Amino acid sequence: MNIKALEKVALSVRALSMDAIEKANSGHPGLPMGAAELGAILYGEILKHDPADPAWTDRDRFVLSAGHGSMLLYSMLYLSGYKSITLDDIKNFRQIGSPCAGHPEYGMAAGIETTTGPLGQGIANAVGMAIAESMLAARFNTGKHNVVDHYTYALTGDGCLQEGVSAEASSLAGHLKLGKLIVYYDSNSITIDGRTDISFTEDTAKRYEAYGWQVLKGSMYDFEEIQRLTAQAKAETGKPTLIILKSIIGKGAPHKQDTAGIHGAPLGAEELAAAKANLGISGDFYTAPESAAYFAEKQGEWKKNHAAWQEMFEAWSKENPDKRKEWDSFHSGTAVSAALPEFKTGEKIATRNASNKVLAAIAAANTNLVGGSADLKGPNAVAIPEAGDYTPESRTGRYLYYGIREFGMAAISNGIQIHGGLRAFCATFLVFTDYLRPALRLSALMNQPVVYVMTHDSIFIGEDGPTHQPVEHVTSLRIIPNVRVLRPGDAEETAQAWTMAMERRDGPTVLVLSRQNLTVFAKDDPDWKNTIRTGAYIVKKTEGTPDVVVIATGSEVSLALAAAEKVPGKKVQVVSMASRELFESQPENIRNTIVPAGVRVVTCEAGTKTGWERWAKPGDIMAVDRFGESGPGDKVAAHLGFTADTLAAIINR
Amino acid sequence: MNIKALEKVALSVRALSMDAIEKANSGHPGLPMGAAELGAILYGEILKHDPADPAWTDRDRFVLSAGHGSMLLYSMLYLSGYKSITLDDIKNFRQIGSPCAGHPEYGMAAGIETTTGPLGQGIANAVGMAIAESMLAARFNTGKHNVVDHYTYALTGDGCLQEGVSAEASSLAGHLKLGKLIVYYDSNSITIDGRTDISFTEDTAKRYEAYGWQVLKGSMYDFEEIQRLTAQAKAETGKPTLIILKSIIGKGAPHKQDTAGIHGAPLGAEELAAAKANLGISGDFYTAPESAAYFAEKQGEWKKNHAAWQEMFEAWSKENPDKRKEWDSFHSGTAVSAALPEFKTGEKIATRNASNKVLAAIAAANTNLVGGSADLKGPNAVAIPEAGDYTPESRTGRYLYYGIREFGMAAISNGIQIHGGLRAFCATFLVFTDYLRPALRLSALMNQPVVYVMTHDSIFIGEDGPTHQPVEHVTSLRIIPNVRVLRPGDAEETAQAWTMAMERRDGPTVLVLSRQNLTVFAKDDPDWKNTIRTGAYIVKKTEGTPDVVVIATGSEVSLALAAAEKVPGKKVQVVSMASRELFESQPENIRNTIVPAGVRVVTCEAGTKTGWERWAKPGDIMAVDRFGESGPGDKVAAHLGFTADTLAAIINR
Repeated sequence: MNIKALEKVALSVRALSMDAIEKANSGHPGLPMGAAELGAILYGEILKHDPADPAWTDRDRFVLSAGHGSMLLYSMLYLSGYKSITLDDIKNFRQIGSPCAGHPEYGMAAGIETTTGPLGQGIANAVGMAIAESMLAARFNTGKHNVVDHYTYALTGDGCLQEGVSAEASSLAGHLKLGKLIVYYDSNSITIDGRTDISFTEDTAKRYEAYGWQVLKGSMYDFEEIQRLTAQAKAETGKPTLIILKSIIGKGAPHKQDTAGIHGAPLGAEELAAAKANLGISGDFYTAPESAAYFAEKQGEWKKNHAAWQEMFEAWSKENPDKRKEWDSFHSGTAVSAALPEFKTGEKIATRNASNKVLAAIAAANTNLVGGSADLKGPNAVAIPEAGDYTPESRTGRYLYYGIREFGMAAISNGIQIHGGLRAFCATFLVFTDYLRPALRLSALMNQPVVYVMTHDSIFIGEDGPTHQPVEHVTSLRIIPNVRVLRPGDAEETAQAWTMAMERRDGPTVLVLSRQNLTVFAKDDPDWKNTIRTGAYIVKKTEGTPDVVVIATGSEVSLALAAAEKVPGKKVQVVSMASRELFESQPENIRNTIVPAGVRVVTCEAGTKTGWERWAKPGDIMAVDRFGESGPGDKVAAHLGFTADTLAAIINR
Repeated sequence: MNIKALEKVALSVRALSMDAIEKANSGHPGLPMGAAELGAILYGEILKHDPADPAWTDRDRFVLSAGHGSMLLYSMLYLSGYKSITLDDIKNFRQIGSPCAGHPEYGMAAGIETTTGPLGQGIANAVGMAIAESMLAARFNTGKHNVVDHYTYALTGDGCLQEGVSAEASSLAGHLKLGKLIVYYDSNSITIDGRTDISFTEDTAKRYEAYGWQVLKGSMYDFEEIQRLTAQAKAETGKPTLIILKSIIGKGAPHKQDTAGIHGAPLGAEELAAAKANLGISGDFYTAPESAAYFAEKQGEWKKNHAAWQEMFEAWSKENPDKRKEWDSFHSGTAVSAALPEFKTGEKIATRNASNKVLAAIAAANTNLVGGSADLKGPNAVAIPEAGDYTPESRTGRYLYYGIREFGMAAISNGIQIHGGLRAFCATFLVFTDYLRPALRLSALMNQPVVYVMTHDSIFIGEDGPTHQPVEHVTSLRIIPNVRVLRPGDAEETAQAWTMAMERRDGPTVLVLSRQNLTVFAKDDPDWKNTIRTGAYIVKKTEGTPDVVVIATGSEVSLALAAAEKVPGKKVQVVSMASRELFESQPENIRNTIVPAGVRVVTCEAGTKTGWERWAKPGDIMAVDRFGESGPGDKVAAHLGFTADTLAAIINR
């Protein structure tokens, strides 16, 4: 290890970070300056990677959980030779179009492994990546050839460790004995509000030991110690490791270091000049020649390592053609189409239970589909036959017991999905999407096709009462950009919904499923399995122009069909709108084939009216715009006036 | 302590719970049967309470954090003599209108201290109650007379302890040294999915010690031990205490106890009969005569204690008339109106900073207003001058450093508010309402007027990028029933918004505030300070009927005014709709005075279009229906076409 060179790398990180933030007049210098040494040794000595091929599947993963310290990541990617970040990009830090966005954004530049900024989630993403690594290793490695063998590293600050989501994920990581997960804690004792001891005096080391982690301590500014502690972390194969590195926020800025003032604001001209003098550098966007020389030399070593892996991979492919075939399928990003179960018109089955049968078929065809529930395996109906449980003893299992940790579950699912090679699903009650919402938003922002299986989807769940009855939830999910919400009306639609979710490659899908039984209904559109891909189709068609079009979703499609029977004098067309936002994105001519222009529309959904105003007049929207009540589902519905009779009366108005 | 009687109380809890759940054919017998002994000793021996006056301010608080065990609470309220729960109510468990709802619901019956069911939040509510107690004690007690001196107890299961929100709140509770908080952990090693060790093997005792808690262990079925451990918890005045009680889920059901099957489903006729035989009881809804006799005797003791407190309270009132006056004001539930700061037309000030000045004035007038931010005191602009910090050393302080724990903060705020005597506010970035959403929903469901100060309200925040730019958030909050969202357009409106939030008594208010400066604009409606209480008013009025009404909110009101200047050929009326849902709830005649029927409407809000369809045609809605970008705020807005010119072009169409 060339300590002198690493010191110069760290110096360069400080210089680039200070200047980029000053130029943008916005950003967080505290972390990149305080943890520059860790960046240097990670990208120089610790990470198995190859800047020439950032997509190398067996690279180590690095998650900057403290995403506000993005200049550390950008500096290291640039300095270590990734072509995805240029000096010009760094000079355009926080400008539109620059890959150097305010917080690291997945997809903006190769080498950014996940989007961070919303605190706590990065650690959970890392847990997911470590799970994915262990799953793929168990599936593909042969002992003779270990084609999957990499570590997941993360860097966290105080903020991430105060967030509940990191606690959930860390407790599970300890339980799962993820020995190849190594988290560095940049412990600088400063947050935005001041010293951490104004609100955070717990013994974090002891807490992580309680989770079943190995906890090590050292200094951010001792390369040899970091190297030694990292080796110690790797040597402990039965536990994840937290390495607590005492550090000084904003190190190098003579007056502002070790103060909250340097956390999230540019140094200012005066302090910037003082810092440069203090660091012994001059000019703007300084990078040390020794840094460039050091990394230039490293490229060869990395290339050689990568080539050796490639050679092993080819040998493995030759000896294990079936595994290789599976590998290619896993990494193609394309779902294998499955023979879906058939349901019969008239059959009564809850869409959650239909989903369970469909999931079984899809999981059999797609052996890279993994997932689980937040302690609701039975109620969510997400058991996968013969897939086995993922445990410390059995890494080939595909079912994950997440425990009662919804947010951790979703953020871990993002990590599994983004690792590559696997498809992730997760499950809880629809009402508890509120608990995991911040992670779902990141699935959407990162274009990750995680499947969210959300059951117990309305007031019809009954007795559990308003705390468990979703009202605003379907709408609240529809409005997150790039989230696809599908609320199928019966078992057959559920099979199509799962298929659409699996086919999706650029964002998450939320499957909204019923607890109660629903009757499979006849569908007048013979091509409905295709038409539903527009978001809606005609279930019950009228001869000629209808008097009224009833748009319903989920369990309310049955209710609409029942109501239509009660108004024999009217020509009522019933539309199942499994995905409102998808249908609204269709061109007008397609929309008109399903909801003809100029015809009166009545909508029916057991949730908030908001958004239905596009389709119907306020009086023609049948909705639930209040909290529910505890009671048997049908009685709650009747109590709230949410019945076929009510709908028939609206149609008749 | 009459152990024989307590055993009979526990027996009665088991009997009532089994039968109520069987009759409802729905519910969770596992906890009430497993923890019946704790219920008995709590309501019989531990709690300072008076069933004849459940609203007694100095009662001990008890939070059933594991809300699915609601039959434990209902049984104990009934058995111990609360008139709010009758045997008939218990027989109507989980039926519409019964106070015995599926999960405990605040307001349904006196004695239910908070709504629980969504796991983890009850512990955080209890932390808030303990904070409130310590604040009120510091303010009102004189040493000679301690009119505030009670404990907060909570009962948690495995589920609550796995949730991140309980981790956040517990870490803060340890930091704050809340010595009068005592949490019992019903440790039965079973969750819905099976044995807890499938996902939860951490050392919870050690984790709580790491938080700075005292941790004690015992058996659920040893009354003397529970009494001794509780005394030990009280003796430790510098730390909250976790008492881990090993228990057997569903104890008493001979075949189903200690299995996941009894967690959340009725016993079924056969097991119910076997359980009754096993427990030596017969008949339905059995209660032991010894239980009735025991509690009949207790009433006198409780009445005496309560009367002694009342006497002390009167003596204190006489000696401290000023304190008593403040006490009455605190407990009236009515906000004191404050002399609000004046802002000048043309003044440029961010609404977050205007909010800061208004908060100072309101907090000076309302000395019971307490709150803080999740580590964003400066950015959220919520410092309260001269209010002091709430710390272990200074319980009179009113500013709370919540740390980076948004969800914990909001759930704690619910606890502070629901305790009585105080008004709570909390603050973070608007985008992170996603992190605290489940607690906000409970503020709304419980009708608690917590004030949420949410700043950095749109893409205009700029450089921090899409992870920090709210898009769907304003709408996602509007659709939660009983949440009032106010997005003021300038400093003057901000003052009114705060006033409206403080005047509200029956639900939470979210103040949506800008990071960027906004110019205070002239208002054509001379009575706008009253009119805005309808949710909207006319900022710029036209002579005669307008050609176009532009509805805007928040920072977009300025943009609308600028756009109106750019279309001299049109009569453009500009409406500031600070609260869409409030305005939509007005009768038609009021709505028409502001948005005349039949006039074309254009809407402008830097967020999702959803919901604006009620007011305008799709092409007339100026919205942001995608994730934002990292860049300077004005450039991001221009990049997304969100400018006065765009709006002018829409108006001109």
